[in-house]
Amino acid sequence: MTAYTATVTVRLKEGVLDPEAETTKRALERLGFELDGLRSADRFEVDVDADSSEAAAARADEMAERLLANPTIHDYDVDVVER
Amino acid sequence: MTAYTATVTVRLKEGVLDPEAETTKRALERLGFELDGLRSADRFEVDVDADSSEAAAARADEMAERLLANPTIHDYDVDVVER
Repeated sequence: MTAYTATVTVRLKEGVLDPEAETTKRALERLGFELDGLRSADRFEVDVDADSSEAAAARADEMAERLLANPTIHDYDVDVVER
Repeated sequence: MTAYTATVTVRLKEGVLDPEAETTKRALERLGFELDGLRSADRFEVDVDADSSEAAAARADEMAERLLANPTIHDYDVDVVER
């Protein structure tokens, strides 16, 4: 077994309204920053023990499917590194 | 001017309690997943126009300092790619 950290990034699908990001963008503009767009995402770093990085990625993928992401509105990606 | 996307990842400092991550970890365990730890972070993808990637990173850094992160409890890092 090797120790891995799987990073699951969960973002809203294209076209889903993101009022939090819109508010953050406006607040930055009010502070004088120029920006073309802003998207927000949630990032989960999960420490797991697994036989291979593929096994760790598969487990993180299942975590995203079952709990971390809502497939109706979210896309996610998984990235695994040894810890 | 070149178009860049700056990704600002904001995480709680080591030692700051993270009840949301703790709850998520327990929920995953209740679903039968084995994991050693879980940390959550916020990720902001900011589209900016700048003369160089250094200038884009500097601007994103200032956004983090002034609004996106709270220096008392957060660490952040900035990563810039051309879009």
